[in-house]
Amino acid sequence: MIYATRKAHFNAAHRLHNPNKSEQWNVETYGKCNNHNWHGHNYVIEVTVAGMPDPETGYVIDLGLLKSIIKERILDPCDHKNLNLEVPFLKGMIPSTENLCIAFYNELKEPVGAAASPDSSLYSVKLYETERNFAEYCPERAH
Amino acid sequence: MIYATRKAHFNAAHRLHNPNKSEQWNVETYGKCNNHNWHGHNYVIEVTVAGMPDPETGYVIDLGLLKSIIKERILDPCDHKNLNLEVPFLKGMIPSTENLCIAFYNELKEPVGAAASPDSSLYSVKLYETERNFAEYCPERAH
Amino acid sequence: MIYATRKAHFNAAHRLHNPNKSEQWNVETYGKCNNHNWHGHNYVIEVTVAGMPDPETGYVIDLGLLKSIIKERILDPCDHKNLNLEVPFLKGMIPSTENLCIAFYNELKEPVGAAASPDSSLYSVKLYETERNFAEYCPERAH
Amino acid sequence: MIYATRKAHFNAAHRLHNPNKSEQWNVETYGKCNNHNWHGHNYVIEVTVAGMPDPETGYVIDLGLLKSIIKERILDPCDHKNLNLEVPFLKGMIPSTENLCIAFYNELKEPVGAAASPDSSLYSVKLYETERNFAEYCPERAH
Amino acid sequence: MIYATRKAHFNAAHRLHNPNKSEQWNVETYGKCNNHNWHGHNYVIEVTVAGMPDPETGYVIDLGLLKSIIKERILDPCDHKNLNLEVPFLKGMIPSTENLCIAFYNELKEPVGAAASPDSSLYSVKLYETERNFAEYCPERAH
Amino acid sequence: MIYATRKAHFNAAHRLHNPNKSEQWNVETYGKCNNHNWHGHNYVIEVTVAGMPDPETGYVIDLGLLKSIIKERILDPCDHKNLNLEVPFLKGMIPSTENLCIAFYNELKEPVGAAASPDSSLYSVKLYETERNFAEYCPERAH
Repeated sequence: MIYATRKAHFNAAHRLHNPNKSEQWNVETYGKCNNHNWHGHNYVIEVTVAGMPDPETGYVIDLGLLKSIIKERILDPCDHKNLNLEVPFLKGMIPSTENLCIAFYNELKEPVGAAASPDSSLYSVKLYETERNFAEYCPERAH
Repeated sequence: MIYATRKAHFNAAHRLHNPNKSEQWNVETYGKCNNHNWHGHNYVIEVTVAGMPDPETGYVIDLGLLKSIIKERILDPCDHKNLNLEVPFLKGMIPSTENLCIAFYNELKEPVGAAASPDSSLYSVKLYETERNFAEYCPERAH
Repeated sequence: MIYATRKAHFNAAHRLHNPNKSEQWNVETYGKCNNHNWHGHNYVIEVTVAGMPDPETGYVIDLGLLKSIIKERILDPCDHKNLNLEVPFLKGMIPSTENLCIAFYNELKEPVGAAASPDSSLYSVKLYETERNFAEYCPERAH
Repeated sequence: MIYATRKAHFNAAHRLHNPNKSEQWNVETYGKCNNHNWHGHNYVIEVTVAGMPDPETGYVIDLGLLKSIIKERILDPCDHKNLNLEVPFLKGMIPSTENLCIAFYNELKEPVGAAASPDSSLYSVKLYETERNFAEYCPERAH
Repeated sequence: MIYATRKAHFNAAHRLHNPNKSEQWNVETYGKCNNHNWHGHNYVIEVTVAGMPDPETGYVIDLGLLKSIIKERILDPCDHKNLNLEVPFLKGMIPSTENLCIAFYNELKEPVGAAASPDSSLYSVKLYETERNFAEYCPERAH
Repeated sequence: MIYATRKAHFNAAHRLHNPNKSEQWNVETYGKCNNHNWHGHNYVIEVTVAGMPDPETGYVIDLGLLKSIIKERILDPCDHKNLNLEVPFLKGMIPSTENLCIAFYNELKEPVGAAASPDSSLYSVKLYETERNFAEYCPERAH
């Protein structure tokens, strides 16, 4: 198996808040991340495609094409935006790093699969909220 | 001259907006940085003290003490906050990276000078808005 | 599977030395890492928890809580310490990067499991001795 | 399982070009990466060995020995070289990041296996073409 | 004084060679950097503008505008190119990191000055050939 | 002025301790950095040479030569050593980051000056004790 990865970044505002819970629950659960005036991050995203290289191109996927897909599907809707208010495919979701990974994976699954080499497909999405806090979603890996 | 530096970071929301100007001017000048729903950054701050080391301690300044001053004066009021709305010493200021540097320098000048070695004082404040955009304020340097 | 990671760091002294072997064996095996006057590192640790996010919080684990557990179990006993002499849970162990990973994993297993979401648990511990030398312990992964 | 990794770097020129295809196909497929006057990169390679630490040494592999193997097998033939023209074990191969990973893995497999602890062997080779584009070859991992 | 900086990167091939000198002199002086088959780098450039922020915008220079100028004047002619053969403003120059800094500074001086705030101008160009080798050109600084 | 820099690293043990002061003063002043069992760091050193490039070579200094000088004068005596006990030119000095900068500058001044281009000389030494704590010694700069 070869894993090919493209890294990108965007800047956005968010807050962690579960509208089905009380104010007290939200403050106790999320602390300063619940600030109703928002805070924000320089998010870094790494998108990994797994498979075997196409013998004609040497590519699992053209990383320039992957860059374009990430721009269109993730950066354009999310960069310099408010993740709670302005991103259609994140509506109704608590924008934790974990949930963002899953949402970005689902958003990328189809176009990345269409662009990858015949035996290759989207493998994982890794998202850094800060240099110290990050998550990865990798649904095919059992362990 | 010895320059001793302490680095720290905080996460915040902001937008660039001059309330004395029209909406059109703001959109044309600031583009996506003007988004009225905010966006945010993982800011990195580097605070530099210049002077000669105290012969008894070998320190220009105790960097542990400098860490505490940065925490009290910058991180506590700014971390996980909205820089336009929630930071008293930034009120009425356009939170560009340049202006934030000047404001942070002014906020740190007195306590850093009091904590530094006899012949040492605050030299500069450098602020990274992203890894690619940053500014430094260094008022004593002519060139 | 979602993998959520928290990164932390500490500074410590150590030496590589097997007391059951001769001086000659130790010098031949460990070279300059065997220096009896010690040397040291800025260690970076990454602790990963695997599972599915709790639907109420969006968290595999509260990374603020994970930060506290890492501080209490790893940083407090190890930071600015001598790993061969001063850390109770490392007594009698050769502090290679590999062995430190296993020891840190075992130290974190129970408290991380207790703090994680119902279907989540400690997955791996990765330790950077330098930017160029690092190890990861991941007992559940067969390959 | 413990995974021990050594990181190294080298600088080289290359171009992406499939000599069995037309000029037009090459330009359309590889774009600016097909430039016949070459371009180049600061490549970063991470070589990972998996197994259990030898109880006498605490090592999966002596990372100093691994450093020497990487130097002899990868850096000496590739550093400050043209990957299309000057590296014997890359002859006839399109030097995409994916193909380089496979070639480097095959070049390292035997000497790393001979140097590793009894139950350990080469696990993966990861290659960064840039900070944003990278690939990993890990033949034993099914997912 | 405020110093505002924008960072960018490009990948290129080059070799160090003085055509007015003998082959022997070139090999003795430049070693492996003289390889006639070229080698290459992921160059990182930091462009710094010095002055005082415009009170209306809070900017020393619009860093988005600076990004565009760097793209047009440096990245478009240099990215994925051979610096010895293909860049008009580098013709006849030995592409050492030092000389590239001076050439890039001269190329940027006029357009950056035109785009900066009234009292601001281009201050320095810093170029990383690798993470470990870099140079900065700053003609106004005496020391 | 052109500033050319070479970066290197070494790992060492140290403690902060002024033998002319009481135990109580040392503990109060240095805290955990005073630990009598030592601690350690991955030090990063950046050595900068200032001047104008030699027109024949394009170099302020041959950075390969500067690498060798740093290895001989700094890395060989300091790497995997105890800075308080084992480095002749640090004897009797409190190994704070500031003092180490001055000592390294003095150790490098003469050999770097001899290797640099006619109008060039050692400009500064910057030392990172950690990614967050660092100092620079630059004796010719007044501000």
